[in-house]
Amino acid sequence: MTPMIDAARLLSRLQQLGATGRDEAGRLCRIAASDADRDGRDLLCRWLAEAGLRIEIDRIGNIHGIWQPDGATGDPVVMGSHIDTVIDAGIYDGCYGVLSGLAVIEAMQQAGLRPARPLAVVAYTNEEGVRYAPDMMGSLVAAGGLAADAALAVIGTDGTTLGAELERIGYAGPHEPGFIKPHAYVELHIEQGPILEAEGYALGAVENLQGISWQQVTIGGSANHAGTTPMTLRRDAGVAAARVLTFLDQLARQTPHAVATVGTIGFEPNAINVIPSTASFTIDLRNPDEERLKSQEAALGEFLAELEEEGFSVTTERLARFQPVIFDPRIVASIEKAAADRQLRCRRMTSGAGHDAQMIARIAPAAMIFVPSRGGISHNPAEFTADSDLIAGANILFDVARSLSQ
Amino acid sequence: MTPMIDAARLLSRLQQLGATGRDEAGRLCRIAASDADRDGRDLLCRWLAEAGLRIEIDRIGNIHGIWQPDGATGDPVVMGSHIDTVIDAGIYDGCYGVLSGLAVIEAMQQAGLRPARPLAVVAYTNEEGVRYAPDMMGSLVAAGGLAADAALAVIGTDGTTLGAELERIGYAGPHEPGFIKPHAYVELHIEQGPILEAEGYALGAVENLQGISWQQVTIGGSANHAGTTPMTLRRDAGVAAARVLTFLDQLARQTPHAVATVGTIGFEPNAINVIPSTASFTIDLRNPDEERLKSQEAALGEFLAELEEEGFSVTTERLARFQPVIFDPRIVASIEKAAADRQLRCRRMTSGAGHDAQMIARIAPAAMIFVPSRGGISHNPAEFTADSDLIAGANILFDVARSLSQ
Repeated sequence: MTPMIDAARLLSRLQQLGATGRDEAGRLCRIAASDADRDGRDLLCRWLAEAGLRIEIDRIGNIHGIWQPDGATGDPVVMGSHIDTVIDAGIYDGCYGVLSGLAVIEAMQQAGLRPARPLAVVAYTNEEGVRYAPDMMGSLVAAGGLAADAALAVIGTDGTTLGAELERIGYAGPHEPGFIKPHAYVELHIEQGPILEAEGYALGAVENLQGISWQQVTIGGSANHAGTTPMTLRRDAGVAAARVLTFLDQLARQTPHAVATVGTIGFEPNAINVIPSTASFTIDLRNPDEERLKSQEAALGEFLAELEEEGFSVTTERLARFQPVIFDPRIVASIEKAAADRQLRCRRMTSGAGHDAQMIARIAPAAMIFVPSRGGISHNPAEFTADSDLIAGANILFDVARSLSQ
Repeated sequence: MTPMIDAARLLSRLQQLGATGRDEAGRLCRIAASDADRDGRDLLCRWLAEAGLRIEIDRIGNIHGIWQPDGATGDPVVMGSHIDTVIDAGIYDGCYGVLSGLAVIEAMQQAGLRPARPLAVVAYTNEEGVRYAPDMMGSLVAAGGLAADAALAVIGTDGTTLGAELERIGYAGPHEPGFIKPHAYVELHIEQGPILEAEGYALGAVENLQGISWQQVTIGGSANHAGTTPMTLRRDAGVAAARVLTFLDQLARQTPHAVATVGTIGFEPNAINVIPSTASFTIDLRNPDEERLKSQEAALGEFLAELEEEGFSVTTERLARFQPVIFDPRIVASIEKAAADRQLRCRRMTSGAGHDAQMIARIAPAAMIFVPSRGGISHNPAEFTADSDLIAGANILFDVARSLSQ
């Protein structure tokens, strides 16, 4: 019989961890390095210890639970994610990947398996970036993309430093981040998007992660009286902005795998009877293919240049830019094979959100497994994945980790 | 020789009145029924008295200066506008029409003319509506569109009532509003728009005034993650709003004499990486033709209904609706004839802004004369009309008033 993870225990732990770190209003707020985060970390470490794992914490607070059975040598197969949350979070994001990694190790122990490599479960510090920027910080530092001292010195939204707060809550460990080099890294996560549910898949084999381009655009026109200025004599910054929105929407629909979002906007002077002199808005472009993302950016640039030729002023500010990440094709294939073996519908897909796996992919073969998110909702108490999907995803993680550790 | 108004005196009075009622920061703020407004009224009344006019004030504070030379009988030809201002106003809006009316009477006196009818100059109370709503209040009450007691009981933005404030500043007169029924009403005004300047005309013969339709529109879609939600699964309220903006802009360009403006907008939740769930914006539609304005509104309604069919929720709230006003064609023709006689370039035009003349048009033949506004700017210290244009406009007012009073 195919070994299975202990479904009841995994589901129970998700609920227990989800009940830990709630504020007075009952909201789940396990913000990184807060008292609530400490409570969550304490609970996790208790479970890691109960499973007989060796707990190792590095200077940035990343928690590792390592299982090194007799005969296992070399770099470990690492599974994990994060347990810090946004404000008023759901219970699945991050926690599901960490607790499933633990469940996989426990299932291997239970089945008496003897892997050739050690296995480890990791909870990276401050994935959400709510209190300390940037997000995905613990994995970024572990991957060498940010110096540990620089990260520890980051000043939070409340004036604290991450380093002092990690000391305070007792999670400033002795190890240098990156002290563990994964043989492979697999992150199981809720999709946080609507695709799997909408298309009826149980699983996503995540083969890449979108590149992200964030810009702030400000269009300048002429404020004039809404009644006395004929259409032909207007330079309406609001209409120009609207044309950019519809252009980007159409462009994204025509560009494979592209998405485009204008999430914020404001007009000046913002009066009902005054033609807007200024329209400011943000643009969020994403594509898993760097060349296509560049072509989206270039097309936007051309459109904005046309507006300038029409007499508008246009200024753009780059807010963020990340190249796409390509995950390890062998791990992706292993996920697909495991799904096929368990007769679960699985599709290859792109992660639209950022995850710790994209950082670890810099230093080790990495990939992700997605399970459906009801309504695509996350970062919200309404975040939900059906128990059957949670269990299926953890069993696939088991199969993949078993294969990678043989 | 053709009689002319006293140009130097008119220009000097415009400057003197414009210097009256400035705040500590030097801003012109002759808000209705304020101390500053009282100072402006006192100055006007001094000039009316110096011209030998009979000053009559009604209960809503409208000031009339009446010239009834020997032999003049019947209803008077009334010229005027208002002298209250917005906050940080220019010096021309309103004042120009009142002071020019006085200049016309003085020029007739000077030329020894003996009109068959009396002439009057009027300054209507609270045209701007900054402190007490609605705007164009004094002329509205005079035309019977609003009961005087109701207007006097209006509570202002500062908690005062207009009636008490008029009493306080000494301008609550004894006459019932409407006690003067104009034989005709002519209002000379700066254009407050860019057309005359852009097209090189000295004068506008205003034949009508736009109807106005104001609405607040709220479009509801679905907030979802900007990275994980494919374009085909989005319900982006921001893009839907942008489509409304571009649709209205195109529609107005295709509809004769129409203008359309979206001056205010806001997205919810207004985050860079969240698809807007809600977009709220105002719509300002204007057209001098009621049927065309209705067709603009109907086309907007159809477009919004299409969005609802696509799955968006749409709510609309009517904020204001005024029908277009048609001015008296004989007075308009008289303006054109006067311009031709003085060899001034004049075009027929539509007023895009609201004016006291639209209220008086309910009870008497009325029309307006426009002079160019540099850059179309008004309600702003940068408001400017060249002296030569100011003088030309006043002389045309003279000709028209002379003709109407014969």
